Amino acid sequence: MARIDLNADLGEGFGAWRLGDDEAMLDLVTSANLACGFHAGDPATLHRTCHAAAARDIRIGAQVGYRDLAGFGRRFIDIAAEDLYADVAYQIGALDALARIAGSSVTYVKPHGALYNTIIQHEAQADAVARAVRDVNADLPVLTLPRGVFGDRARELGLRVVTEAFADRAYREDGTLVPRGEPGAVLHDPAVVAARIPALSRTAESICVHGDSPGAVTLARAVRDALAANDIELAPFV
Amino acid sequence: MARIDLNADLGEGFGAWRLGDDEAMLDLVTSANLACGFHAGDPATLHRTCHAAAARDIRIGAQVGYRDLAGFGRRFIDIAAEDLYADVAYQIGALDALARIAGSSVTYVKPHGALYNTIIQHEAQADAVARAVRDVNADLPVLTLPRGVFGDRARELGLRVVTEAFADRAYREDGTLVPRGEPGAVLHDPAVVAARIPALSRTAESICVHGDSPGAVTLARAVRDALAANDIELAPFV
Amino acid sequence: MARIDLNADLGEGFGAWRLGDDEAMLDLVTSANLACGFHAGDPATLHRTCHAAAARDIRIGAQVGYRDLAGFGRRFIDIAAEDLYADVAYQIGALDALARIAGSSVTYVKPHGALYNTIIQHEAQADAVARAVRDVNADLPVLTLPRGVFGDRARELGLRVVTEAFADRAYREDGTLVPRGEPGAVLHDPAVVAARIPALSRTAESICVHGDSPGAVTLARAVRDALAANDIELAPFV
Amino acid sequence: MARIDLNADLGEGFGAWRLGDDEAMLDLVTSANLACGFHAGDPATLHRTCHAAAARDIRIGAQVGYRDLAGFGRRFIDIAAEDLYADVAYQIGALDALARIAGSSVTYVKPHGALYNTIIQHEAQADAVARAVRDVNADLPVLTLPRGVFGDRARELGLRVVTEAFADRAYREDGTLVPRGEPGAVLHDPAVVAARIPALSRTAESICVHGDSPGAVTLARAVRDALAANDIELAPFV
Repeated sequence: MARIDLNADLGEGFGAWRLGDDEAMLDLVTSANLACGFHAGDPATLHRTCHAAAARDIRIGAQVGYRDLAGFGRRFIDIAAEDLYADVAYQIGALDALARIAGSSVTYVKPHGALYNTIIQHEAQADAVARAVRDVNADLPVLTLPRGVFGDRARELGLRVVTEAFADRAYREDGTLVPRGEPGAVLHDPAVVAARIPALSRTAESICVHGDSPGAVTLARAVRDALAANDIELAPFV
Repeated sequence: MARIDLNADLGEGFGAWRLGDDEAMLDLVTSANLACGFHAGDPATLHRTCHAAAARDIRIGAQVGYRDLAGFGRRFIDIAAEDLYADVAYQIGALDALARIAGSSVTYVKPHGALYNTIIQHEAQADAVARAVRDVNADLPVLTLPRGVFGDRARELGLRVVTEAFADRAYREDGTLVPRGEPGAVLHDPAVVAARIPALSRTAESICVHGDSPGAVTLARAVRDALAANDIELAPFV
Repeated sequence: MARIDLNADLGEGFGAWRLGDDEAMLDLVTSANLACGFHAGDPATLHRTCHAAAARDIRIGAQVGYRDLAGFGRRFIDIAAEDLYADVAYQIGALDALARIAGSSVTYVKPHGALYNTIIQHEAQADAVARAVRDVNADLPVLTLPRGVFGDRARELGLRVVTEAFADRAYREDGTLVPRGEPGAVLHDPAVVAARIPALSRTAESICVHGDSPGAVTLARAVRDALAANDIELAPFV
Repeated sequence: MARIDLNADLGEGFGAWRLGDDEAMLDLVTSANLACGFHAGDPATLHRTCHAAAARDIRIGAQVGYRDLAGFGRRFIDIAAEDLYADVAYQIGALDALARIAGSSVTYVKPHGALYNTIIQHEAQADAVARAVRDVNADLPVLTLPRGVFGDRARELGLRVVTEAFADRAYREDGTLVPRGEPGAVLHDPAVVAARIPALSRTAESICVHGDSPGAVTLARAVRDALAANDIELAPFV
């Protein structure tokens, strides 16, 4: 029987600000990418989300990002490699302490937003992120697109690379994502999303559903139903 | 032969801003209290300072503080206990990741600035800090004044409490520090500081010298010379 | 015919994070207290909200707060008077530039959250805020409770003091607010709120409705209906 | 008699952190580019620096930058035009309030660091900055390199463009600066700097000396002496 992981970006509030329905999403995913405080995620929010994830035996991943609360980590920053390296290590360690308090731990790393996209192509930043993960804990897999500089560099450094596909994002023919600004970049119809799941599941080890969009919970349920209907087992990759 | 530890607050720059001469101080102390990013200390600075400390076999302590870069952690913040708890755990974990990359680890915790002073008396904040340290790693000692709520609470929770005396701060008769604003609160004359060292050494397990004042290096040398002249061995407490 | 102003705290998002329904509230109030970036309110959000307020001819007030995004300005900070003075001037000037671009300007000042509450009693901080307002623009009224140190100090400095009452907050017999943590501190039933409006309107020049609670729009409508039913005219105080 | 302005970046501390000797530099320059809080410059520091500048009748310019304290505004950020527009307006307004309290006002705008360099070529960001300046106060000149997109766009919008030359930076043959990372990019020898001043003075309306380097005061004095020796009068451009 085929197996696949379902991941979502969670813990993305900050102080009084909330984003998405973390509790509902945690009932649906197998892996939770938690913000680490640099683009979102104050420690108290992360602490609560770690507990909620651990209580459901959901895996916790460190969603490291650029230091940019005002931009939610969605703006490229031309940060020096040695600064990015330290920023990534700092974020993984910070979240791991909160995860361990909750009886779990950080078990993988998935870069966020503009950092995620940048290191598909940016050699120096890809290398900095991969080295930081390896130096903090060489057993941590990284979650990324099937093709790209970051995955290549991570493999060279001996890290396990887990590939993911986006349930609600349109792809170009070359396998890259249609940029968010372009029409049709994000899919909102649960039926359309569900219909893609069997094919998407053959291209990657994890499927990402976005946790912060209005219909996130509905979409995640549609993905789960589509997996069940196609006899694909949901299971975390670690 | 009597033994004592010598500690200083280091890693207190942020990005382009520097504070104190960390390299020179690391040649003189046995324990380095490193800022953790909330009141000072960007990850790249902390990464370098962890390496410099590890290379000299100097112990690394997490100097957790209020989230207040503009105030350098020197302003009391009436933060809720659950938020402070998570902030402290986050900071310890973040610094520990950088210390481990450098071949060392966080081996104790010393609160910074206004947090240090507040939890001498503030029950809820003292409890939050002590619980966070215990939950992250119950083997981490905490560094504090000989008397106070924080030390009491930490002992109740099973933590080792290491007491410290301030080489360059005036004391009141009841053992508390003369507040910084008052005349004579901070001592600058190396000879005056040196003369107090034998007596101070009998009251505490560690002596603190401030790393960010202009004469910090000179004062630290005076303290070391006074210890040597009085046959008191310098050694870390962990 | 009696007249009263209706004010609400708006512009309280930050980057990707939203709080409250600013557009709907701007259709109901006569004065909009806009965050100024220190506890909430990124410049682009404020720019849009200033335009939306100006388009409706709603007055714009500077809701100055402590520098504390993580705490949403709801935590007391023991900031030095000279720092608070400069922080307040900075925030008023920043918002005023955005308001002027939108064809309006800052026409009053209302402190936010913990700063609002603190300066009812805290002499040094009350004085710092009042002096900052006077020095930036002595024609700006300040919005505060009918009794308190801040109002007294502002009057002494020649500022106009506009008093406000809270539509949805319970009061103690001495006229102070029941603290948020206590049971019954916040009223949620529109009928209960509406019933208090005639009496409240006799105690103050403006009524505050909170913009960030789930039922904010419904409550604001209930207040407007109650004012109309009692022949009290809605009008800005400046 | 030829005339030229001498400008420097000042007010670049933040809270407990200091950078450069602002008081000494204010005795030497005719125009002070003051940070506005986004890459450096807390309000209390800016307040003091505005007073010090006003006391010497030195012009105050708003040195607007990217929101990036950790990077000191020296890292390109791919910020959306509408966000940058609002950030620039916010910063100018904030500093202007502090300058007015000090009896002066913001009389020009000079972008800082990576923003300065970016808008020499980046159409969308150049346009956003120029529009923000125009919309806040169309009488404010902007300070930039003799050639570049920002100057062109500012002129199109009706702004006065004041050109500047860098006393201590090496130029390429095409008139652009040798990037900071390359050897020889920054000149440190006062005699070398002094020798270039007559030629540089013919290429621009203002000469920039950096305020944060160790020999800043010495270099600024060398520039003044060279101007005097060549009968070039020092005078602000506004």
